[in-house]
Amino acid sequence: MTGLTISETMVRVNYSETDQMGVVYHGRYPVWLDIARTEHLRQAGFSYRELEEQGVRLVVTDLSIRYLRPARYDEVIRIRCWVREVVSRRVIFGYALTHEGEETLLTTAQTSLISLNTRHELSRIPPAVVRALVAVPDPVRL
Amino acid sequence: MTGLTISETMVRVNYSETDQMGVVYHGRYPVWLDIARTEHLRQAGFSYRELEEQGVRLVVTDLSIRYLRPARYDEVIRIRCWVREVVSRRVIFGYALTHEGEETLLTTAQTSLISLNTRHELSRIPPAVVRALVAVPDPVRL
Amino acid sequence: MTGLTISETMVRVNYSETDQMGVVYHGRYPVWLDIARTEHLRQAGFSYRELEEQGVRLVVTDLSIRYLRPARYDEVIRIRCWVREVVSRRVIFGYALTHEGEETLLTTAQTSLISLNTRHELSRIPPAVVRALVAVPDPVRL
Amino acid sequence: MTGLTISETMVRVNYSETDQMGVVYHGRYPVWLDIARTEHLRQAGFSYRELEEQGVRLVVTDLSIRYLRPARYDEVIRIRCWVREVVSRRVIFGYALTHEGEETLLTTAQTSLISLNTRHELSRIPPAVVRALVAVPDPVRL
Repeated sequence: MTGLTISETMVRVNYSETDQMGVVYHGRYPVWLDIARTEHLRQAGFSYRELEEQGVRLVVTDLSIRYLRPARYDEVIRIRCWVREVVSRRVIFGYALTHEGEETLLTTAQTSLISLNTRHELSRIPPAVVRALVAVPDPVRL
Repeated sequence: MTGLTISETMVRVNYSETDQMGVVYHGRYPVWLDIARTEHLRQAGFSYRELEEQGVRLVVTDLSIRYLRPARYDEVIRIRCWVREVVSRRVIFGYALTHEGEETLLTTAQTSLISLNTRHELSRIPPAVVRALVAVPDPVRL
Repeated sequence: MTGLTISETMVRVNYSETDQMGVVYHGRYPVWLDIARTEHLRQAGFSYRELEEQGVRLVVTDLSIRYLRPARYDEVIRIRCWVREVVSRRVIFGYALTHEGEETLLTTAQTSLISLNTRHELSRIPPAVVRALVAVPDPVRL
Repeated sequence: MTGLTISETMVRVNYSETDQMGVVYHGRYPVWLDIARTEHLRQAGFSYRELEEQGVRLVVTDLSIRYLRPARYDEVIRIRCWVREVVSRRVIFGYALTHEGEETLLTTAQTSLISLNTRHELSRIPPAVVRALVAVPDPVRL
């Protein structure tokens, strides 16, 4: 998809994601980032499942999350996702989480991924994927 | 191991396993049963990892859990595990969960597993495994 | 909602739900059932979050799952959910999982829930909820 | 405990923690860090459960993880945990993960936590906890 810059994915908090503090357990967020990244790729024209079937593995090497405000049970969370940087063997995604329809940041995050082939060797991200993953300026401060 | 009848595995409840009701989330228990079953196999002389490397897959086909009393954060839970029934292509495990050092049942459960080969076809459980998995009468009412 | 009988909820399998057998980990399904049950309640006119805020807790006492065929990464799974039986203090839900747009059953399940008050005592399910949760004949064999 | 500097906690990888890449899912590591941090506190003389019962909540505000090498099913992972920095309202933990009995780093991580009271207001970490959490130089490069 030409011109995709920032994707939006909604997740609704389910009960299994809460902890006894009454908020979403902090360790749950990497899964949400994964879901948002997969949808970003899909909106950019690529199914990660198909990439993997073609022998491409995008592997997370660095993850950082900043928790600003909690999310709670049954809330709908909007995850904005964008590419911060992309080169032939690495892509860095940024994330901003808010409540649906609101702008107050709940969480920001960043993940770096590299591309491995089926022998687990560092390899190039397919050029078509690199072309589709256009880096944009951060819409929020990470 | 000759004479293994009922194995015991301890798990300590971590924060991620609690939910906002202040107890262990009910959907977490299948993981505990899996851990206990794996340790039962290990104590019977078999590493499930090695079985899988040899092309054996033991796949859960039926799971049932009865929740009697909740488990809570940081508690040490004792999982007793035993074989209820074993035939050439199927093994049924029973489970009884209590607090460490106590007898009051928290949860009971049962899982049925079949053996698949690497082509995902129904196959025989390796005879040595069947011989090691001796069925015993239920120590508690399931 | 008058006349709700069988609800449908879609979930897309994310990477965290797969295991090294290349399928959805069997222990993940209770979370899907929970999501489907919550949506069933919502379509029946009740938010479980609001019920909980009003002091009602619906707690799972029995869970059983039959795994017929595996689900895989990125597939969209349709979860049909219905009430099998409802009385003043207990409700039993049935579930049938298929791929989106298909009829072949992947998994069937049942959960029984009781109602607790904020002191964790057995209590009546609010009558309005009981009235909205109309039991129907099983659409598939559980 | 006087003189505690670096704690060690062992976790064995269970099947639910693997993904279809055949390694531990990257999103699972925050739970391991939580387990290690809780054990570090326990070895320093404090039960986090008791702290929470006394109205202290230690909440993760920043998480960063560097994935160097994968962990696999059934492996025993050693998590070294230490305090990098501690002041009255914030404590930063460092983590280094290796295979049991080996020195090759699999993963390094850092988490920052603040202290909240029961009204979710920023508050001081109990002085006895601050005194017990002695900061040490990083044993590995984070």
